[in-house]
Parts: sequence; structure tokens; C-alpha cells
Amino acid sequence: MKAIQVGLLGIGTVGAGTFAVLARNQEEIRRRAGRGIEIAAVADLDTARAEKIVAGRAKVLADARSVIADPAIDIVVELIGGYGIAKTLVLEAIAAGKHVVTANKALLAVHGNEIFAAASDKGVMVAFEAAVAGGIPIIKALREGLTANRIEWVAGIINGTTNFILSEMRSKGLDFATVLKEAQRLGYAEADPTFDIEGVDAAHKATILSAIAFGVPVQFDKAHVEGITKLQAVDIRYAEQLGYRIKLLGITRRQDKGIELRVHPTLVPAKRLIANVEGAMNAVMVHGDAVGTTLYYGKGAGSEPTASAVVADIVDIARGLEIPVFGVPAASLADHAIAPISAHQGCYYIRLMVLDQPGVLAQISGILGNHRISIAQMIQRGRKEGGSVPLVIMSHTALERDVGNAMREIKALSCVSEQPVVIRVEGEEQ
Amino acid sequence: MKAIQVGLLGIGTVGAGTFAVLARNQEEIRRRAGRGIEIAAVADLDTARAEKIVAGRAKVLADARSVIADPAIDIVVELIGGYGIAKTLVLEAIAAGKHVVTANKALLAVHGNEIFAAASDKGVMVAFEAAVAGGIPIIKALREGLTANRIEWVAGIINGTTNFILSEMRSKGLDFATVLKEAQRLGYAEADPTFDIEGVDAAHKATILSAIAFGVPVQFDKAHVEGITKLQAVDIRYAEQLGYRIKLLGITRRQDKGIELRVHPTLVPAKRLIANVEGAMNAVMVHGDAVGTTLYYGKGAGSEPTASAVVADIVDIARGLEIPVFGVPAASLADHAIAPISAHQGCYYIRLMVLDQPGVLAQISGILGNHRISIAQMIQRGRKEGGSVPLVIMSHTALERDVGNAMREIKALSCVSEQPVVIRVEGEEQ
Repeated sequence: MKAIQVGLLGIGTVGAGTFAVLARNQEEIRRRAGRGIEIAAVADLDTARAEKIVAGRAKVLADARSVIADPAIDIVVELIGGYGIAKTLVLEAIAAGKHVVTANKALLAVHGNEIFAAASDKGVMVAFEAAVAGGIPIIKALREGLTANRIEWVAGIINGTTNFILSEMRSKGLDFATVLKEAQRLGYAEADPTFDIEGVDAAHKATILSAIAFGVPVQFDKAHVEGITKLQAVDIRYAEQLGYRIKLLGITRRQDKGIELRVHPTLVPAKRLIANVEGAMNAVMVHGDAVGTTLYYGKGAGSEPTASAVVADIVDIARGLEIPVFGVPAASLADHAIAPISAHQGCYYIRLMVLDQPGVLAQISGILGNHRISIAQMIQRGRKEGGSVPLVIMSHTALERDVGNAMREIKALSCVSEQPVVIRVEGEEQ
Repeated sequence: MKAIQVGLLGIGTVGAGTFAVLARNQEEIRRRAGRGIEIAAVADLDTARAEKIVAGRAKVLADARSVIADPAIDIVVELIGGYGIAKTLVLEAIAAGKHVVTANKALLAVHGNEIFAAASDKGVMVAFEAAVAGGIPIIKALREGLTANRIEWVAGIINGTTNFILSEMRSKGLDFATVLKEAQRLGYAEADPTFDIEGVDAAHKATILSAIAFGVPVQFDKAHVEGITKLQAVDIRYAEQLGYRIKLLGITRRQDKGIELRVHPTLVPAKRLIANVEGAMNAVMVHGDAVGTTLYYGKGAGSEPTASAVVADIVDIARGLEIPVFGVPAASLADHAIAPISAHQGCYYIRLMVLDQPGVLAQISGILGNHRISIAQMIQRGRKEGGSVPLVIMSHTALERDVGNAMREIKALSCVSEQPVVIRVEGEEQ
């Protein structure tokens, strides 16, 4: 069978990795795909750098459109990133009848419905294993490996930068700003780390996971997104004393009011496997009604780990594998709404700074009780007459809306000196 | 499209789970498969029990052959187990041009080459996701998700019974025999637990993983297999003091002399994720040259977790997915030999019972040195004049053959009172 012809748009870190992996493992990949895979053309604005990487093994062009227009090209691999030109090129490639492989989570989370509809109309594949959790084959696991299951929830560490920062904050007892600088120095965080530390990147990936897990359209604009910038070292310490680790989780879950889609710092029991995922590693848990809880762990970023996923997608297409984007045909997508975060029910970690004086505990527990929030555990340590001391509370399952209302009342008390810290807890019920 | 017709051979635990999952998630599975999936016929010698489970939703027969012969049946699901009649029926189903789905690891590990060759000749699929690690989609991950990679090694906790026993021995400080009885009482171990506790079941699964990871024929007879029956509580304790857990791992790895294929108790650094897999859970690590180390975790047995894998295979076949059994066509299987265990190189945990008298350490370290075994760590505690005390040694990387020779010399010393305990160590290098 004729070798499949690939056109690469953008040859940065992942593009270079894709080139390297395809060249190095050429023979094994050909055996597995049942046909050769050739990168025929590479488009990159920096043609000089591209020529260096490609080293004569493929055409190098500055113009992505001429790669798309090339009738010899079967698959267009988009590795440019962002919502701008990448979107235009992906839509043009689809219009030209090319299959598309992309690692662009931002593009899919925001414009996925438009892109997938166009692909469905044209009868071409859009594959994106590399868009979520790098080299971990989580899209394949969800869409094919667990296809027997009604998926109940997916929860994952899907941003390596923030997991590295949280691991360092915990193990070294440092504060966020200090560790962020260290992460930037080591290359774990970008010069402008906003998308990572504010949870936006994780929310893009959670949005894609949500669409596949539940067979619904991508709904990034409905996601509840909190990053780790406000997280204080003291809360990591208290969490540890209570037997928890704090992780930035992307979570999507079925509940009565619709589908939860949220990214936020989360207390996870320290004995859980996912609580022990350290550094820049990723891990995704999937709970299905038949299989129970499964977990998938590996490198979530980097040149060759991401290339591993890009090449797997190319091989799937070469093998003629046709799985609808969401695992179900576009026409049979379910119409589940994203539930507002106020409808979330769970346990909460609450830290208050309160005056060390009689009657304070009675006032606070009274307000919590009025809002149907019961206390599972409490830590109050240190004495500071006339000053503020921390009061740490772990609640039983409560409604987010009730917690918000209670915090507003508590904050207004004269004995409470700072904004209450509230962090959601997961993983108690497993 | 016409619903795909399935014939079930054997409706025990997994068969009943398959029936339940297909019935409960019928609609979602149909959306995903693009067509309905119907269990048309069930064969089981105990027709009365089968009728109860099936409750009129499918034909029930005592004769498996009439299910195979039924021209309406597209896929035969073999859930009988063992090498006997199961082998005959699987080969007959293939001969009749049916696709086969099986959870039978013993059959595939021992007779896989014959079965896969027959399937290849007839152009039918033999799918077996359920044969390794239950509901964890590890076959799919290896064969499709990581297809870009040259796989370097696979190592896993692939037997839940022994992992349950080891977890209990460690957490409760009990000995093997006591925990085995407890495991049998709780249903985690069978009345005849030989296959599990002697490592045979894990070796079946490791054999299958080895074949897929490296694209080689199954070679169960070449596997090195040690179970956990001789493991003593004292070694679990010493391992813990040294920062390790003892797990029964199935390991397959490329090395210079061929492919390693071995199952044995293994010391794993306690900080590794896999060291923290407790109870009857399974986890498989895969190391690929591009992706690095990935890990897959979940339930390795049980009615619905195993059914989850069986149904995923049925859906793959319904979707028309055709992946060769070993991930590569039978004709292009590689011809790698299984390396003898004597060629293994790694670190070793060694426990000797030695007389508490001067000069003993010099004698022992002299013998180790003569055999090119250097000492990384040592524990010697307790004094017992005239009696024996434990001497625990962690070696640097050494050759298995050298360790064996050294142990024979050491055992012959008059100051050594018991058979030396030697346990391999993994996971130092990651």
C-alpha cells in the first residue's frame, strides 16, 4: 500500500519531536500501520530553522496553504497552536478533504463544535490525542477502551506546570511566587504563565474530556475555572495535617442538574494514587459504571511524549480507523447542559482567621448550621490573645451555594479578620 | 446497519457481567458502535442457571457447537477458560469464520501462536483485552495508543490475588499462610490458589504483554516464574526500612541477550506510584522511547470490570477495527529469543542469617566482591552471641549468574545458618 503523505504545519518543539520519532521508529511504525508514513512537506515561517530540523528529508515551505493545497497530502498535522491562523488553516484543510491531526487544545475547546461539524460534513477525521495529557492515550481509552461504560466522572491533573508548582510548594514549604520563578527558570513555566497558573489550559483539556466522556458539544465558556495563584502555603500545610494533598484538578461529572465542568485547587486524600503524582507529570482518572475507577499516568507535555500521541493519531488514520470525534456521531450528541458551580455538592476545606476570644466558635458553627453545613473535622491551634488565629474546618457534603452564603455571613462578623479561604475536596467517597 | 450478533460460550461471572453491561448501556453502546449489539445465543452446560441470568433475552443452549455453527452469529465470545474444550471451541469458531473475543489468558499464553495463525488464515479477529488486567485497556494502549514508540519494557501488578496478599502482609505484619486463608475467606483467592500464588497467572499475562510489546510470538514456556509462597514477613519489613515495597511484578524488557520475561517478587522504591497500588487492584507500566513511562491502573478482575473489556472488544469488531493480534501482521513478527534469567542484570536484596561473631562480614563481602557484586546499603541489627542474626544487603547492579554463584559459596560457609533470601529490585533507574 502507498505510504501515507503527511504535511506538517509548524515545526516547533512538538513538530521536531514528531519528525524525530517518525524517522527513528520508521520500520516499526510501518509494520504496525500496515503502510509507510512520510512527512512530505513542512510549513513554518522560520524556514531556516525548519530546514535545519528537516535536513533535506521533506519539502520546507513558508506557506502553510500550499501544503494544504498539495493533492499528494493525505493528512495535515496542525502544530501552530492558538485560535488565530491555526483555526483558519484547520478549516481550510478540512474543506480541502484532508484528515487533520492537532495538538491544539485551545482551538478545540473553543471552536471544536464548528471544526468537528465541518469534518463530519466532509467525511474527514480530526484526531487530537495530543491535545490532552500529552503522550497518555487518554482520548483512546475514553472513546474506545471504556466504550462499554456509562462514564460517571473524569478528574485529572492535566497541567504539568501547576502540578510542578504545587509539588514544590508542598515539598519545600515555599510560597507560590517563589516557586513560580523557579519553575520559569527551569523551563516548567512560560515567561507569560497566565494560561497555566490561572487554570485556563486545564479547562481547555477538561472541556475536551467532558465532550468525549458524555458525548456532548464542547462548552468551554460554561466551565468554572480557578487557578492556583491565590493558593497559600499555609493551606497546603493544613491540608497535609488533615491527610490531604492539594492538586489542581480538571473535573467533569454527571449530576442531577447537568454536567459539572470545573477546574480548581482540590484537596485529595493523600493515600489516593493521584495525590502522589508529583512534578510535571499528568494523570487522569476515569470512573465508568462497569469498570469502576481507572487511572492513566504519564508525561503531559514535551517534544517526544506529545509526538507519541500525534504519531498514534496518524497511524490510526493510516489504519483506516474511523471513530467519530466525540465517540458518537455528531447527529446523536446528547443535549446535557453544564451545571452551574453553585449546584455543586461536596466536602469543603474552610480556613478562617478569627479573633482568639470566647464565643467565636459558637457564632461560626451557628452560621454553618443555619446553612446546612456540618463539620467533619476542625483544627484550631495557637493562641494569640487579642490577635487572629487560623480556624480550619472540613465540612461534610454541602451545597456550594450554601457555602457561599455562609461565607458571606461569616466574613461580615467582627471576629473574622480576613477573606475566608474555601477549597473543594474530592475523593472521599471512592 | 444490522445489529451485530454475539454468541456467548459460558455464562459464569464474566459472562453474566457482559450480559448485564450490554443490557444496561445498550443505547450508549449502540451510539458508539454505530450499530446495535445483540447477544443472540448463550451456551452453558448449566442451562438452568443460564436461563435465570438470560431471562428470556437470548436463546440458551447446552451445546456450544450449535452456537458456533449458527450462521447468524458474527462474534463468538469464549468465557469458559482453561486450555481444554475452550481451545477446541475457539479454533472451531475461527474455522467457521467467526470473530472471537476471549478473556482466556492461559489459552492465549500457551496456544496463542496456533490460534492467531488460524485467525490470520481465516481473516477473522481474535480480541482479548479482558485477558490482561481486566477492565484496564492496556492491550489497546500498547497496540494503538503507544504505536509510535519502540517499547523498552513493561512491568505490572497483573494478579490481584497476590497483590491483595502482599498488601495485607505489609499493612498488618502477618505471614503468608495467615493472609492466604483470609483472602480465601473474602473471595480474593480461590480454593485452589496455585495459579495465582505461584505466579502462573501473572506469567500468562506477562507473556501476552511481551508478545504485543515486542511483536514476537507468545513464549510462555520460556518465562521465569516465581510466586510469593516463600516470601517471609521479615523481608517485607526490611524492604520497608530500606524504602521499598515488595510487589509481584510481571516484567518483560528488551536487553542485549534477547527479551526478558519474568514474574517474581520485586522490591520497588516506595515513592513510585506502582508501589502504592494496594489490595486487589492492577497497574501496568509501559516505557516507550518517545513517551517515557506511562502507567495504567484499575480493577484487574471481577464481573463488570472484565465485561467492560469484553464489550470494548465487541464494539471494536462492530466498528470494523482491524488491528493485527500482535499489533503487526503475523508474517512480520520479530524473531527475538527470550533471554535466560541468568543473564538478568539488576540490583538485589539479599538477606543472610549469620552467626554473630567477628570476621563474618569480611568473609561475606569478600565472596561478593569476588563475584563482582558491590554493596549499596547494608542493615545489621540485633546482637545474639552464639546465635544467628539477619544481615541485609542491597547490591548495586549485578549479574544474576554472579549472584547465584556467590550465594552458593556463601551458603556453604559455616557462619551462615539458613538458605540466603534473594529478591530482585526494580525501579531504581527511572
